[in-house]
Amino acid sequence: MAKELKDLTKRSVSYSQWYNELVVKADLAEQSDVRGCMVIKPYGYAIWEKIQRALDDKFKETGVQNAYFPLLIPKSFLSREAEHVEGFAKECAVVTHYRLKTNEEKNGVVVDPAAKLEEELIIRPTSETIIWNTYKNWIQSYRDLPILCNQWCNVMRWEMRTRLFLRTAEFLWQEGHTAHATREEAEDRAKMMLKVYADFAEKYMAVPVVQGVKSETERFAGALDTYTIEAMMQDGKALQSGTSHFLGQNFGKAFNVQFINKENQLEYAWATSWGVSTRLMGALIMTHSDDNGLVLPPKLAPIQVVIVPIHKNEEQLKAIDEKVDGIVAQLRALGISVKYDNADNKRPGFKFADYELKGVPVRLVMGARDLENNTIEVMRRDTLEKETRTCDGIVEYVKNLLDEIQENIYLKAKTYRDEHIYECDNYEDFKARVKDGGFFLCHWDGTAETEAKIKEDTQATIRCVPFDVEQTPGVDMVSGKPAKYRVLIARSY
Amino acid sequence: MAKELKDLTKRSVSYSQWYNELVVKADLAEQSDVRGCMVIKPYGYAIWEKIQRALDDKFKETGVQNAYFPLLIPKSFLSREAEHVEGFAKECAVVTHYRLKTNEEKNGVVVDPAAKLEEELIIRPTSETIIWNTYKNWIQSYRDLPILCNQWCNVMRWEMRTRLFLRTAEFLWQEGHTAHATREEAEDRAKMMLKVYADFAEKYMAVPVVQGVKSETERFAGALDTYTIEAMMQDGKALQSGTSHFLGQNFGKAFNVQFINKENQLEYAWATSWGVSTRLMGALIMTHSDDNGLVLPPKLAPIQVVIVPIHKNEEQLKAIDEKVDGIVAQLRALGISVKYDNADNKRPGFKFADYELKGVPVRLVMGARDLENNTIEVMRRDTLEKETRTCDGIVEYVKNLLDEIQENIYLKAKTYRDEHIYECDNYEDFKARVKDGGFFLCHWDGTAETEAKIKEDTQATIRCVPFDVEQTPGVDMVSGKPAKYRVLIARSY
Repeated sequence: MAKELKDLTKRSVSYSQWYNELVVKADLAEQSDVRGCMVIKPYGYAIWEKIQRALDDKFKETGVQNAYFPLLIPKSFLSREAEHVEGFAKECAVVTHYRLKTNEEKNGVVVDPAAKLEEELIIRPTSETIIWNTYKNWIQSYRDLPILCNQWCNVMRWEMRTRLFLRTAEFLWQEGHTAHATREEAEDRAKMMLKVYADFAEKYMAVPVVQGVKSETERFAGALDTYTIEAMMQDGKALQSGTSHFLGQNFGKAFNVQFINKENQLEYAWATSWGVSTRLMGALIMTHSDDNGLVLPPKLAPIQVVIVPIHKNEEQLKAIDEKVDGIVAQLRALGISVKYDNADNKRPGFKFADYELKGVPVRLVMGARDLENNTIEVMRRDTLEKETRTCDGIVEYVKNLLDEIQENIYLKAKTYRDEHIYECDNYEDFKARVKDGGFFLCHWDGTAETEAKIKEDTQATIRCVPFDVEQTPGVDMVSGKPAKYRVLIARSY
Repeated sequence: MAKELKDLTKRSVSYSQWYNELVVKADLAEQSDVRGCMVIKPYGYAIWEKIQRALDDKFKETGVQNAYFPLLIPKSFLSREAEHVEGFAKECAVVTHYRLKTNEEKNGVVVDPAAKLEEELIIRPTSETIIWNTYKNWIQSYRDLPILCNQWCNVMRWEMRTRLFLRTAEFLWQEGHTAHATREEAEDRAKMMLKVYADFAEKYMAVPVVQGVKSETERFAGALDTYTIEAMMQDGKALQSGTSHFLGQNFGKAFNVQFINKENQLEYAWATSWGVSTRLMGALIMTHSDDNGLVLPPKLAPIQVVIVPIHKNEEQLKAIDEKVDGIVAQLRALGISVKYDNADNKRPGFKFADYELKGVPVRLVMGARDLENNTIEVMRRDTLEKETRTCDGIVEYVKNLLDEIQENIYLKAKTYRDEHIYECDNYEDFKARVKDGGFFLCHWDGTAETEAKIKEDTQATIRCVPFDVEQTPGVDMVSGKPAKYRVLIARSY
């Protein structure tokens, strides 16, 4: 069985297959029998819960409150905002009936034609429409603003090609929806939430991200501006990991949300929305993991430390148990999540492989000789380095080691990412190289035509106009026209 | 505006209208424009989050892990378990298509007939079928058992008459689904989870409950036994507040979930499921609240203490602010959730009425004279009693007061409940009295006929065979036949 666990396709053979296998073998998720819908297994869900908890705290620190809005959206709501319906009507699940009845053969159920809805309902692909239809009743005066709501929920988009976590018909996410009295305040909020996402990605997920603004083509349907964080996977492709939208007054107008402003005039409310989803799980897995399995950042690992005993007989085990119990108690007192696996139905070698596969950041092993010598073996998952240390001060050592691993995998990912960002001024050169991955910083003339040509020629897209790049004017590498700034171009998930 | 807040129908005038108004006026929830689906507003959702957190911790203490299963269930799955489909097919939302398209007039969207699903999908009314279809792949040997999964999610049942929190088409809940190697272990788990629910209801919600087992008629569709907790509302009606089901091998057989047992024989897995929902919010509101608004148990109150200053000028306010800041910091250090409301756009009288309506357990008021005298006014929401106390030791006093309020509202509810439980042996007497509410302990002959007659005559139903009643045999008050035990009968929500 240990062999089977290790039997993971190598990244160098097929990065894509490696990912698909890893998600299943590490017990994170699996396909269900419902097309495109996944089952998130307990180990995967435990990581998602840690992501949720950390993000939720950060949202609340900025004044956001959670709420809950209906799953189903009347079909007509979608049509209110012209771009929005264009973006979402093509891929939605439609509820048309509200009852089943026994079939004629009495061996199954069929849709009851008598129970047809007057107006069809859509399973939310995103909730701007139903939420702004609600805000209409909450907002009369500037004193009612801002409204800062978030919901954690499921959404559904009828994707044709799905991959676990990265693109599924149903996924879990949070969607924040805010209403403001001024344009400036709304724009600030949209940017503030992007920063929350970027901080979370870098400090918790240990995933470095490029922050920037999307081109018009790549904007959210109904937004005036879409801000994004883009992460680089180990194959050099970009993964859009979170977006925050400045929606202007589009939804305020579509749902007639007007308020009396400070100047006593009627004005449409200003909006933002922002979300991250279970797609973050994909980013987490693909950024750090290796051919032995998952590598998890300690801050999001359900089990941060695992301890495995090696013993020849019950007596030895009992002595090790006693010693380890003290270490476990001390680790827990420091808030470290630790598992002592002294189950006797699996060999140590199997356990080692399994916890490596599951990405547990630190493994401690204690054998009979360790017990004699007051030592313990420490292995760190990120580098797979082992050392034998004295048990004196081991708890503080492990605590610091967890911090070091968190920092190290971030730096490793950042080094990789930075080494694969290229300035490029020649389209032939670009076309030859973009296939192999990497982020390309290229001058762009700002036209949709150029953008479309790049996509057609290379499948690469403009990921964003990055914020943290010192911009100088130049010449568009495709059209030869003047360009004000460089954009980040890459193939993406 | 303070007047409007207070303008709540009295319970004595109409308990039902009082409830409906209170839910809306206290900003807990409101109807959406989607039939039967509610919007849970931030203040209501904050209570739900506290309920979730406390329950989730308790589940995990018993070894349960969270996971996530698909929202949509293939229609055919429902038919696999005969009683289950009978119970749920009549009230479900059916997805028949996966795309909309622009209509001919180009001013809206219509269902695209080309995007019809081969098999219709049902929005989960409960997830036994999809989960047991998944467990099939997880369970081969007794070593794979038990499986103890829970999910927090939304479900949909197409109710015709809806009321906020109590009965809505969409609601939020948790559903636990466990698989076991033996009948005994599954039965124990079903009972264990009922106990978790009962403890939570009594210790956190301060709602006393009767624990018992449902009659065959009232069982969950597909269960061998349904355990329940029943709470009494202030109108004497019962509210079923949580159920735990022993499902036997029904779903194991329906989805062919077999495993090799310790005796090396193939056996079907044994199942339980158990759930509580946003209906608990209804129980919480109706048990404790009064004509002034909500009364919340301190353990679940989003704001446990509110502090309001009374001042004549900015200088006074500044001095009060300084004094109060110290108290706030000390309260927070004890883990108490406190809000200092020194906003100057509302009068103190408005604030008082608003926080009463919202059920904040303790209100502190500090005026200029208090500041001079080093005193503060303390009001407790449950009794509305006020007293002026020295600020010395105020923090410990408030901490103890919160515990006292938690205990007091539980005892008050329990006294009320106990005073309205009656033993009754005469059907005419029963029929005359049951209209006015209360729980009736009556001998029952165990037949569905008697049960149906009681329901037809009085709208009351057998809520359960209670666990904590000393049972003696007797005579069924309806049929005159011998009866082994008394059951709890009441009208219910």
